[in-house]
Amino acid sequence: MAHIDLGVDETQHPGINGPMMYRPETAKPLNELAEVLLRSEPHPLSRGERELIAAYVSGRNDCDFCCTSHSAFAAAQLAEGMALVKEVRTDIETAAITPKLRALLHIAGAVQRSGREVTPALVEAARTEGATDLEIHDTVLIAAAFCMFNRYVDGLGTLFVDDPVRFAHAATQIAEHGYLR
Amino acid sequence: MAHIDLGVDETQHPGINGPMMYRPETAKPLNELAEVLLRSEPHPLSRGERELIAAYVSGRNDCDFCCTSHSAFAAAQLAEGMALVKEVRTDIETAAITPKLRALLHIAGAVQRSGREVTPALVEAARTEGATDLEIHDTVLIAAAFCMFNRYVDGLGTLFVDDPVRFAHAATQIAEHGYLR
Repeated sequence: MAHIDLGVDETQHPGINGPMMYRPETAKPLNELAEVLLRSEPHPLSRGERELIAAYVSGRNDCDFCCTSHSAFAAAQLAEGMALVKEVRTDIETAAITPKLRALLHIAGAVQRSGREVTPALVEAARTEGATDLEIHDTVLIAAAFCMFNRYVDGLGTLFVDDPVRFAHAATQIAEHGYLR
Repeated sequence: MAHIDLGVDETQHPGINGPMMYRPETAKPLNELAEVLLRSEPHPLSRGERELIAAYVSGRNDCDFCCTSHSAFAAAQLAEGMALVKEVRTDIETAAITPKLRALLHIAGAVQRSGREVTPALVEAARTEGATDLEIHDTVLIAAAFCMFNRYVDGLGTLFVDDPVRFAHAATQIAEHGYLR
């Protein structure tokens, strides 16, 4: 049970869903931010790749709800599906991703620890693999945003229900309709 | 200099201003989130108190630009001014704040480390001092949001110019017009 009364049945609205329904005034910009970062097109990173960054950061923040959600959202939008998501969450050095995405995940991992951990060398390594300014910007902001979302979900002590059917359904909804429904 | 070309003179647009101008699509929801969290009225926490939470978290994340900005914004909107901001940044246990705000700052400090650090005991302590569900919710989300803003500003390596005149001017603008100009 969450630390506050969210006014909903948390078993039906687990994780971030309860706080989003409790406070629609903040839910609006939060969902708009997710939509721009993770789904806006055209974009040099695919939607699956951007969700992979979100899942990776959420895993490093030990946020079960966000990591499980965004892993499902990534898998639904990547040709390689959940197998690739699991590889990335296990070890980005050996995962079958492009060198550019690996370099961007190194930046995301630094942001997860602290913004000050992003070094010129990490940024230069990403550029060497072909990353553009926009890709570097959005990687930093996706990683930073999930340091917020993860803390929001866990800081309120929301419920995590490990129900693969529900997460697969949510992934279909996100892939089709996005975050602004 | 920032890690990417923000397309602006950073000495004129330091800190978060450059990234906001570089990517207006993400600046929009970011500013809307700040406006709702830090300025929406009516609210049980004053604007000055909410900015104090932002400054406190930014200080703990070592984000010079955000800490200096939101310290100035808090000072401009608190009767006790910068003296109280400095007390809070030095030691919340001895600062001349209400027991309720102290308990909320303990929650904010936990969120800064990890969402999982917010314990039922911390929440109960805030309730004992009179904190409502909304105050607890917004404290968690303000703290979480500044874990994002701080990482955004420092993760892109933006410029910090320690110019008290400029921060005082920005504080006047924020206090009068808010984040949606």
